[in-house]
Amino acid sequence: MTRVAIIGAGPSGLAALRAFEAAHGGGAEIPELVCYEKQADWGGQWNFSWRTGLDEYGEPVHSSMYRNLWSNGPKEGLEFADYTFDEHFGRPTSSYPPRPVLWDYIAGRVEKGDVRKYIRFETAVRWVSYDEATGEFTVTSQHLPSGGDVSETFDYVIVASGHFSFPNFPAFAGIETFLGPVTHAHDFRGAEGLRDKNVLVIGSSYSAEDIGSQAYKMGAASVTASYRTSPMGYDWPDGFEERPGIDHFDGNTVHFVDGSSKEIDAVILCTGYLHKYPFLPEELGLVSPNNVYPEGLYRGVVWNDNPKVFYIGAQDQWFTFNMFDAQAWYVRDLILGRIPMPDRATREESMAEWKQRFLAIADASAEIRFQGDYVQDLIDQTDYPRFDVDGVVEIFQAWKKDKAKDIMGYRDYTYTSVMTGTSSVPHHTRWLAELDDSLERYLGTPAQS
Amino acid sequence: MTRVAIIGAGPSGLAALRAFEAAHGGGAEIPELVCYEKQADWGGQWNFSWRTGLDEYGEPVHSSMYRNLWSNGPKEGLEFADYTFDEHFGRPTSSYPPRPVLWDYIAGRVEKGDVRKYIRFETAVRWVSYDEATGEFTVTSQHLPSGGDVSETFDYVIVASGHFSFPNFPAFAGIETFLGPVTHAHDFRGAEGLRDKNVLVIGSSYSAEDIGSQAYKMGAASVTASYRTSPMGYDWPDGFEERPGIDHFDGNTVHFVDGSSKEIDAVILCTGYLHKYPFLPEELGLVSPNNVYPEGLYRGVVWNDNPKVFYIGAQDQWFTFNMFDAQAWYVRDLILGRIPMPDRATREESMAEWKQRFLAIADASAEIRFQGDYVQDLIDQTDYPRFDVDGVVEIFQAWKKDKAKDIMGYRDYTYTSVMTGTSSVPHHTRWLAELDDSLERYLGTPAQS
Repeated sequence: MTRVAIIGAGPSGLAALRAFEAAHGGGAEIPELVCYEKQADWGGQWNFSWRTGLDEYGEPVHSSMYRNLWSNGPKEGLEFADYTFDEHFGRPTSSYPPRPVLWDYIAGRVEKGDVRKYIRFETAVRWVSYDEATGEFTVTSQHLPSGGDVSETFDYVIVASGHFSFPNFPAFAGIETFLGPVTHAHDFRGAEGLRDKNVLVIGSSYSAEDIGSQAYKMGAASVTASYRTSPMGYDWPDGFEERPGIDHFDGNTVHFVDGSSKEIDAVILCTGYLHKYPFLPEELGLVSPNNVYPEGLYRGVVWNDNPKVFYIGAQDQWFTFNMFDAQAWYVRDLILGRIPMPDRATREESMAEWKQRFLAIADASAEIRFQGDYVQDLIDQTDYPRFDVDGVVEIFQAWKKDKAKDIMGYRDYTYTSVMTGTSSVPHHTRWLAELDDSLERYLGTPAQS
Repeated sequence: MTRVAIIGAGPSGLAALRAFEAAHGGGAEIPELVCYEKQADWGGQWNFSWRTGLDEYGEPVHSSMYRNLWSNGPKEGLEFADYTFDEHFGRPTSSYPPRPVLWDYIAGRVEKGDVRKYIRFETAVRWVSYDEATGEFTVTSQHLPSGGDVSETFDYVIVASGHFSFPNFPAFAGIETFLGPVTHAHDFRGAEGLRDKNVLVIGSSYSAEDIGSQAYKMGAASVTASYRTSPMGYDWPDGFEERPGIDHFDGNTVHFVDGSSKEIDAVILCTGYLHKYPFLPEELGLVSPNNVYPEGLYRGVVWNDNPKVFYIGAQDQWFTFNMFDAQAWYVRDLILGRIPMPDRATREESMAEWKQRFLAIADASAEIRFQGDYVQDLIDQTDYPRFDVDGVVEIFQAWKKDKAKDIMGYRDYTYTSVMTGTSSVPHHTRWLAELDDSLERYLGTPAQS
């Protein structure tokens, strides 16, 4: 029987399991599936841990989430086509749910089915090798609580381990002389301890934007965001400023390249993440910056050098959960033989074409459009439930404008689902005033504030 | 030609390289050696990094050192028999050197020779397997900067990767509600940021003792050390207290099992480390608490179930550098065939005998004596330079008394080398007043304070 290894049970790995389950539900025979998950539960990035650095088994902590994270994009942009927010919550909710609410939604879909049986929790993949002679992969994994290891063979490998877990952690001149905490966003768990502190966030992307905002929300004395290329440029509140790149640290003084300097108490590097697959040999491992069309992947999922290896969710993401679904359904159909695998020349032709389009992207708006087209192209190949991809593109475009208008208030805005037509309702409490991020609080009805 | 893999180029791995080099210098033919080192330089634990969590390649940071660490035992207890402090510094120094000074000493020995050529820096071992049919090991490693992986075969494997790198990180009830930094000693880099804070250290061993003392030295508002079994019991200064185990956290209040509670600002877990070898299959991996006679190792170094695998430095340590030497010289001689490998029955007889002695250890003093006897037993088998092991045992016993007398001042005491007869001299500045831990400062001659 065909055997498929799925590495990771986060949103991407769960999408793969759901895709096979959907085919099975439709009467198809599906391969043997083994999904390896390092953590004790599913959800990947959304499976929050208070831990930092290394976990109770000495393994790198996977999730980069912090306690107070709320979705930074509208939930109407990430909604599953086969499991809507209406189905999950039974009533309209706000557009920017906090972390535990989104985790609940992801879990709700897979709890409906029967995919947990495929997952080996607390099991780390140590090494994957490919044998040209047999055409099989050997996956060596280790059960963390017992230490027991096992090597098993597979016909296909789906890499779904994510790429927001291993920090990109550059050094800065003199950083070793700074006598306070130096944390990467990956290990940031909450800003409460930053009250009355002068906080430096290094970076100008989502992590810098949101962790800086968290620090502001929790009462930091000041927030300084250092950009390398260009500032985020939002209309920041008093006490929040942007400065250019860092020249060096001298003790607790940071010197910027424009000659200015500032005394700071805490440094948080929001410098992104590495595509890192420590369990993959060089010839199977994706090497890419974080972008919407990583090199080497046909249709963004097939590892061109060995088309029995697939990646799900390897792109930088405007679309998220429903893009992983589109990818998973397509990968599933390749494995099931419903879609023939094109030969190398055909794959490379397609990759070259998409790469041209990728290189022509001029701005964020065009990048959203590009990713929408990519998602549409995948969905067109499979039986994944159709949805209005263009409508989602418009939501993202509107979201960008709302952020530009009101960076500290955009999470109080609402959108309308393209899946159900349901308009979201404002959260009972403004984001800036809400200090309880629990599911109970979210679903409760306290007095409006 | 015989091939030996050495995993790690810290004090234990360097001892192995030195042992082979010494044999080579004496005219012996030595095997091909490949030493894999994850870091960019040698020194292992002593190769300090300001980084925490994951390093620039997304690998777990190896070193658990902090900026301000000074040796917590007299240097006369760890002196190499073949490379004395007198040889290195050319003059007497104090008994408790800071971290950079000890690193300099370790490096000085290996720089004298020509062992760097054996070391593959920035190379992580991913997996080791043993083939019963060929009697060979396959070591799969990955060069971190390039991502290139290679699998090579060896006749012997020496595991010298240490066991103070992967934190033992238990959970405590309610810890996720604590809204400040929760750090394991492994990720502690300095106490300057703890000034005016109420600090909780969890544990009652060396990390708790020394990190608590660092916090006190750097001006913490209070230091509370929580013990599970028994307090450290030192005569702590005002503002430093011991409390029993933790019942739970409730926000920033910690509740102890005696019903008392305390408001705290920072938590540092000094709960020890795991013997973790993520690159070893279960049948080769040592599983042990941190003690002076781990199970499964004949003479503390030979993996009894596969006597072509050796461990150096796997013990809890009173003796350190010179014990690693004693082990390395012995392992070398087994590999060179200078000492025949006893059969399994003979090994098990010896292990049973030592285990009896181990189980009879009644207190720390007896444990030091036990380890002295162990070191002596190894040295008796090889040509490692003889030294007065009993004299070192006495130094450790005196050290314990000095600590009991003066926990905040014991590093100002001096001892006499059993290797050279040289008496150390007091550091120019008392430990409690010294804020500059650099080599330059250590070797300089500022006014006495």
